[in-house]
Amino acid sequence: MGATNEAGDWLDGVKWDERGLVPAIAQERGTGQVLMMAWMNRDALRLTRETGHAVYWSRSRQRLWHKGEESGHQQVVFGLRLDCDADVVLLEVEQKGGIACHTGRHRCFFRELQDEGWVAVEPVLKDPNAIYAKG
Amino acid sequence: MGATNEAGDWLDGVKWDERGLVPAIAQERGTGQVLMMAWMNRDALRLTRETGHAVYWSRSRQRLWHKGEESGHQQVVFGLRLDCDADVVLLEVEQKGGIACHTGRHRCFFRELQDEGWVAVEPVLKDPNAIYAKG
Repeated sequence: MGATNEAGDWLDGVKWDERGLVPAIAQERGTGQVLMMAWMNRDALRLTRETGHAVYWSRSRQRLWHKGEESGHQQVVFGLRLDCDADVVLLEVEQKGGIACHTGRHRCFFRELQDEGWVAVEPVLKDPNAIYAKG
Repeated sequence: MGATNEAGDWLDGVKWDERGLVPAIAQERGTGQVLMMAWMNRDALRLTRETGHAVYWSRSRQRLWHKGEESGHQQVVFGLRLDCDADVVLLEVEQKGGIACHTGRHRCFFRELQDEGWVAVEPVLKDPNAIYAKG
């Protein structure tokens, strides 16, 4: 991911919202599939670059969330992009374990709008109880 | 895009934020490129389905924004997905004119993080002044 800019001014190039967050979209290297969208604060984005692994800000837990910290399903980051308004980040990632979603599916966008409403169209690859089993 | 569910209860399946919005990611059919992320309210999502063209909610203008209404760069919608938390929507679109970004680029994610910071790595395909020229 390259050396960190000493001044960290690349982080100032991001337009953080009133909560100090930006949406971060994780797209899978190779397949191009959009795996998930989560949020990052300044520390999360800095750590993502420094570690080369996706780090998000968990709004529900109000803490940094090193993706895969419990599940092992880390995201190795190959590239970072910023949009025209500087308020959305796009990550190119390799998904460890092939499972991005806490439901045990490959990706979080597993529901498709059909005539009858939102329908799950992708299989559960691993039982979430097995993913998050406590020691 | 199929018939609209009379009850509109598919719209209740979305977890709208405190402003009544959800992030909506537009991904290009065929290339898989993530073109942009914008926001939708309930009416925008309903109209997106009904018209088959992406309709967003402009936070800056506080009104519905039929993508391409000025530029002609509409997005034809081929599919809609919802994520596991029901708070992010993913659109599969065909980008009319090949330009999604108001800067005249193919997509909004044209800046890449390099050692020196965010660098524009995609060309301007059309002068924005020509795109948005007033009659």
